[in-house]
Amino acid sequence: MFKINDNYQKLPGSYLFSTIAKKVAAFTEANPDKAVIRLGIGDVTQPLTAPVISALHAAVDEMADGATFHGYAPDLGYAFLRETIAENDFRSRGCDIGADEIFVSDGAKCDSGNIQELFAADSRIAVCDPVYPVYVDSNVMAGRAGTYDAATGYWSNVIYMPCTEANGFVADLPKERPDIIYLCFPNNPTGAAITKTQLQMWVDYARKEGCVIIYDAAYEAYISEDNVPHSIYECEGARECAIEIRSFSKNAGFTGVRLGYTVVPKDLMCGEASLRDMWARRHGTKYNGAPYIIQRAGAACYTEEGRASIMGLVEYYMENAKTIYDGLKKMGYTVYGGVNSPYIWLKTIDGMSSWDFFDYLLERANVVGTPGSGFGPNGEGFFRLTAFGTHENSKAALERIAKL
Amino acid sequence: MFKINDNYQKLPGSYLFSTIAKKVAAFTEANPDKAVIRLGIGDVTQPLTAPVISALHAAVDEMADGATFHGYAPDLGYAFLRETIAENDFRSRGCDIGADEIFVSDGAKCDSGNIQELFAADSRIAVCDPVYPVYVDSNVMAGRAGTYDAATGYWSNVIYMPCTEANGFVADLPKERPDIIYLCFPNNPTGAAITKTQLQMWVDYARKEGCVIIYDAAYEAYISEDNVPHSIYECEGARECAIEIRSFSKNAGFTGVRLGYTVVPKDLMCGEASLRDMWARRHGTKYNGAPYIIQRAGAACYTEEGRASIMGLVEYYMENAKTIYDGLKKMGYTVYGGVNSPYIWLKTIDGMSSWDFFDYLLERANVVGTPGSGFGPNGEGFFRLTAFGTHENSKAALERIAKL
Repeated sequence: MFKINDNYQKLPGSYLFSTIAKKVAAFTEANPDKAVIRLGIGDVTQPLTAPVISALHAAVDEMADGATFHGYAPDLGYAFLRETIAENDFRSRGCDIGADEIFVSDGAKCDSGNIQELFAADSRIAVCDPVYPVYVDSNVMAGRAGTYDAATGYWSNVIYMPCTEANGFVADLPKERPDIIYLCFPNNPTGAAITKTQLQMWVDYARKEGCVIIYDAAYEAYISEDNVPHSIYECEGARECAIEIRSFSKNAGFTGVRLGYTVVPKDLMCGEASLRDMWARRHGTKYNGAPYIIQRAGAACYTEEGRASIMGLVEYYMENAKTIYDGLKKMGYTVYGGVNSPYIWLKTIDGMSSWDFFDYLLERANVVGTPGSGFGPNGEGFFRLTAFGTHENSKAALERIAKL
Repeated sequence: MFKINDNYQKLPGSYLFSTIAKKVAAFTEANPDKAVIRLGIGDVTQPLTAPVISALHAAVDEMADGATFHGYAPDLGYAFLRETIAENDFRSRGCDIGADEIFVSDGAKCDSGNIQELFAADSRIAVCDPVYPVYVDSNVMAGRAGTYDAATGYWSNVIYMPCTEANGFVADLPKERPDIIYLCFPNNPTGAAITKTQLQMWVDYARKEGCVIIYDAAYEAYISEDNVPHSIYECEGARECAIEIRSFSKNAGFTGVRLGYTVVPKDLMCGEASLRDMWARRHGTKYNGAPYIIQRAGAACYTEEGRASIMGLVEYYMENAKTIYDGLKKMGYTVYGGVNSPYIWLKTIDGMSSWDFFDYLLERANVVGTPGSGFGPNGEGFFRLTAFGTHENSKAALERIAKL
């Protein structure tokens, strides 16, 4: 009889957001009269902007004509998009990144999940706690996480770096040396940002210890403070030790459009092996390029008009962040995030567990958030609300919470 | 120092089609006056059909309005598409497949590459020889293939099933028992089809021996003969032993649009473990759904108008298949495929190797094909031409070859 990858069986329960979706579906089915406000999953609500819509229509028209039709895209992405990204997201900020180090994909979640394939099976990973579940789960599936201890919520072979109120939700350097370090700033779920000085310390550590940093910068567009780096390549030496993952989901609202990219610099080597070449090989073998029309939509985000429209989206959501942050604070909640990030990280009240608070908010205020403990043991007692709702919903949610 | 997945280093050279692309690029750069005709990679040339274009525009417009905007898609695909697929591609053919066994993805290549993750690291795979490179390469990357013998072109731990003129390019049952059997019919690269009786024999074997068949049916739309099954689920017992992979690339021309799906029946179990649930978990953890607008385009392929338009595309390419097949035959070539498949599989002349014939055709006729040996040792001495060019190019290519 064939055998399965039994690492899958080690995963406890289902993927966090699937669990939430099921709970909410059950609630709405039982309470069809209640209008639920969803500030849980980090999904955007505002439509695509006009320049993006125009680019999509134009690209669709190209696909209707044999003379301008596009078949298979280049595995690594169209040059028009890779060059635009390298210039606008990196070189214009003083980061030395070339178009041939940019790998266009169908999203940061896929890249976050797939990137671990480049590393040895016995690599040790370090993650922040709390953390976006994909980093750990994809390593569990690959057999790197060891065994799960349901009592503590920890995997035996994962190095956890607590992010707490005490360290401002920016992890301290790990006590044990990992091979791979996952960092996400601005952070999901805590909304914390990292300063350039702090991030340089991580880059220095990785170079000294021979680690690779996988830097998830999906929320880069939300940075509002000057001392917060937009890319890890603003740090000296990062080309030798860091991979950066970016998304079009949260800035341009592409959650349902699917576009992202990963930067693997040519200087990132393991002996003679180039991680850039390995990632290119993975793209060539297991991926077939992002759709032409969607790469055109991505490029439209970088025109003057496109940039302005996207800045408008970010401002829209950041107004929600302020509504939620200020509103909760006024009610006496302890609140974090929301300044360089669309996530608000709040402490539950009355010593409630994260999931108890989830049920409390869902049942009493019909507001959906995400339990902090779903992101890791140090998330227990916290709760995440997102700024991705509408102005109306964000305000209404706060009014409902205020009435509890 | 961190360590890489050194299975990647075992891969000889680059992915076949990347190598061809580089060779062609070098030739066209050196010979800018020569108009190269590409009948190599299986990429389509005809534009998307009118019903698909209309669906894309309509879906783009939905994304421009907050009331109809779509964010994250369901991980496994929208119900409107999954239900349409289950009804039209399976139940209407008498195959008992439910919408909840359909997993929509961004293409058959990704699914072909990723599906091996569900199986144990020490699983033995069996592949046809010659074979589409993704099946083997993705298993090499996962460490299942053993070591590569450059002299024979074989991997030490892969079971090869020769497809030769003697067996009509339909493999015989393997002599050693594999865990996973990759089959592709209508076949890429040989263009061979399998009869229902032959396929039932494989299903019976898999059930008896406890194997899983991964059935790649990407070219299903090209079947023209009655005794050729469109789905493996036409065979009795296939729900217990087979996964089927489908594509919108070759029927609807979606190579640059990216849409495919995989069927994992609920009856496919390994002890208590459901492979359907494992694949759902993989989608939930490492994938974020196919774009809404593209799923709408996929659904448009199943309306009456959509079906007719796609049948028109298939007929267009099959006319090319006939042009190439008949033309080569008339010149005295030994030719296979082309009847239930858009691929023509020809024997090289004068005992030329596949790559010598590639160079000969590129340099002398400026026609690009794919060397049979690129698909495996038993492809040596063969060459693949595709019917995916235009009528004009296909005819012109034949005229050039005739003049050699």
